[in-house]
Amino acid sequence: MELTKKRSFTLQCPMPKLDFDIITLGHGSGGILTHKLLDKGIYAILEDVLTASRHDGIVLEVGEKLAFTTDSFVVSPVFFPGGNIGDLAINGTVNDLAMCGARPRYLSLSFIIEEGLAVEEFWEILQSIRLACLEAGVQIVTGDTKVVEKGSGDKIFINTSGIGVLHPKAEIALSRVAVGDRIVLSGPVAAHGVAVMSRRPGLEFETTVRSDTRPLHRAVEALLDAHGVAIHLLRDPTRGGVATTLNEIARDAGVGIQLEQDAIPIDEDVKGACELLGLDPLYVANEGVFVAIVSGDAAEDVVETLHGLEEGRRAAIVGEVVEEHPGKVVLRSGIGGTRVVNMLAGAQLPRIC
Amino acid sequence: MELTKKRSFTLQCPMPKLDFDIITLGHGSGGILTHKLLDKGIYAILEDVLTASRHDGIVLEVGEKLAFTTDSFVVSPVFFPGGNIGDLAINGTVNDLAMCGARPRYLSLSFIIEEGLAVEEFWEILQSIRLACLEAGVQIVTGDTKVVEKGSGDKIFINTSGIGVLHPKAEIALSRVAVGDRIVLSGPVAAHGVAVMSRRPGLEFETTVRSDTRPLHRAVEALLDAHGVAIHLLRDPTRGGVATTLNEIARDAGVGIQLEQDAIPIDEDVKGACELLGLDPLYVANEGVFVAIVSGDAAEDVVETLHGLEEGRRAAIVGEVVEEHPGKVVLRSGIGGTRVVNMLAGAQLPRIC
Repeated sequence: MELTKKRSFTLQCPMPKLDFDIITLGHGSGGILTHKLLDKGIYAILEDVLTASRHDGIVLEVGEKLAFTTDSFVVSPVFFPGGNIGDLAINGTVNDLAMCGARPRYLSLSFIIEEGLAVEEFWEILQSIRLACLEAGVQIVTGDTKVVEKGSGDKIFINTSGIGVLHPKAEIALSRVAVGDRIVLSGPVAAHGVAVMSRRPGLEFETTVRSDTRPLHRAVEALLDAHGVAIHLLRDPTRGGVATTLNEIARDAGVGIQLEQDAIPIDEDVKGACELLGLDPLYVANEGVFVAIVSGDAAEDVVETLHGLEEGRRAAIVGEVVEEHPGKVVLRSGIGGTRVVNMLAGAQLPRIC
Repeated sequence: MELTKKRSFTLQCPMPKLDFDIITLGHGSGGILTHKLLDKGIYAILEDVLTASRHDGIVLEVGEKLAFTTDSFVVSPVFFPGGNIGDLAINGTVNDLAMCGARPRYLSLSFIIEEGLAVEEFWEILQSIRLACLEAGVQIVTGDTKVVEKGSGDKIFINTSGIGVLHPKAEIALSRVAVGDRIVLSGPVAAHGVAVMSRRPGLEFETTVRSDTRPLHRAVEALLDAHGVAIHLLRDPTRGGVATTLNEIARDAGVGIQLEQDAIPIDEDVKGACELLGLDPLYVANEGVFVAIVSGDAAEDVVETLHGLEEGRRAAIVGEVVEEHPGKVVLRSGIGGTRVVNMLAGAQLPRIC
């Protein structure tokens, strides 16, 4: 009976007519094209089956409150200074759960391997996965392995999905972002993207920069333990960097964001590499820092808590949520000028995670 | 402190030395090579971070008992008679949850798109995803979209992971498989594999066969409602077909399995296509049938329950669990002869799901 009833849902929804006919790399950049594909395409078609959080994870209530998230990793090259696709895939999903205010517990692990992958490389990736799981304290509980023909993949793609249990003090939601909140960055920006670029064929350059890939859930747990509901929102600025993440928050929360350029921590070698490559470090991917939007009166204490942790040693207040220019991120430079930091228009650095 | 302690896990585990140096398509077939890669490679390296269920899903206890599963779909071609990669990806994960004895609730949805995919095709895939979700009664709660360069993918790969809530009467476990149990097949075999092959370049042939992709959780729920603990094990024989699934069960449960060839339901057009292609239908992938290992005295009633459902109309008892030949599947033909049904040795039909 139920089956028959359900089958009456075969009504076609309208197919979106957009100003592009093929998917391009820009649609994977995390910027404006990605948002167009998501908002006008994917979300439009899936509207009635989608519980969208406009974020990388969602909190579910099934007995306890759980967080659930997924990410496919397609980084190229697969090995880069400071990590490889294996630890990236574990840390990335661990961090998406952490950004929900959850303690990561269970991961799934799914491989799409291109025929011809050297077993030695695969073992090395698995070894990194293992170490990242041990480091983060998570267990892999389900998995899948597919192999595709040579030329139908690119060495290896990894999907990890994760389940975490929500921190009892977590009240993290876009709706909690308010004028007067401060923006805290947990560490220096742009290391991951620069490290990956430094090994990309045609772009290779000598650098001491290493990816910042690492788990962030212990820092988040420390913040929630100490500051609870003063933590309004957490995001890890991966693909598209800090600029994209803050633009998403400004747009989705309907607030303005003002950044202080001089306050944003960045390593000298990363800065140098970005200048060399003509990249704005605010748009370069990170895998080991997070943005916390916290209540104004707690901001100094939050930074102090972070300074007590290895992964938050360089944390800083980098800006605030303002009433002016809602939906926009504005950067104030050291010499007092201001400029709007837009969302990325095309493909700056695809396949970075 | 905890971080420092965890970092002492940087001990390398031994890298397995196996008799292959590169990954080949056979490693993705679901057969002997896949098992070697898993058992001697992936599981060996990940041993201390893996909670292996030797199955497509795992039951977790986080408040309520949950099932969690993941699958990456790489079917080629993406569109085939009776479905496409979209509904396949939804039904596949819905069914993996059902095989755990769980009611599917939440799915993640992750795309790896090859640059150049026609938007029209993508919309059609999304539309199928939507309809499959509505049909199965599941919600997509988290997602991800990546784009890779032309030649680094194959149109589109989809990963879905799923969370379901365990049926209160479910006691489904390999350890419950016992001598005297009957093997019930919920419907006719091999339709999915044949439908996909019929559209594969170089193999194209005219056929009326359509993929059997569909959700199976309502049939499972009906079985658990009516027969509860008499249902010992459930598996959907996808990649590698019924033969591979039963071999896995025989091996992992340490029992013998005897099949009656004449009892195995198969459609005439599927049978004809298999003969044409030189395929043994027992090894061909299914996406809309399941194998239930049930207690001997409940088997007839289980089949009767299935006959009352659209998706179980052709259900049949096809064999039994025996004391003889532990670890092996033996098929008795219509004329009384017997033969061992081995696990697939190489790549019969890769990229079938």
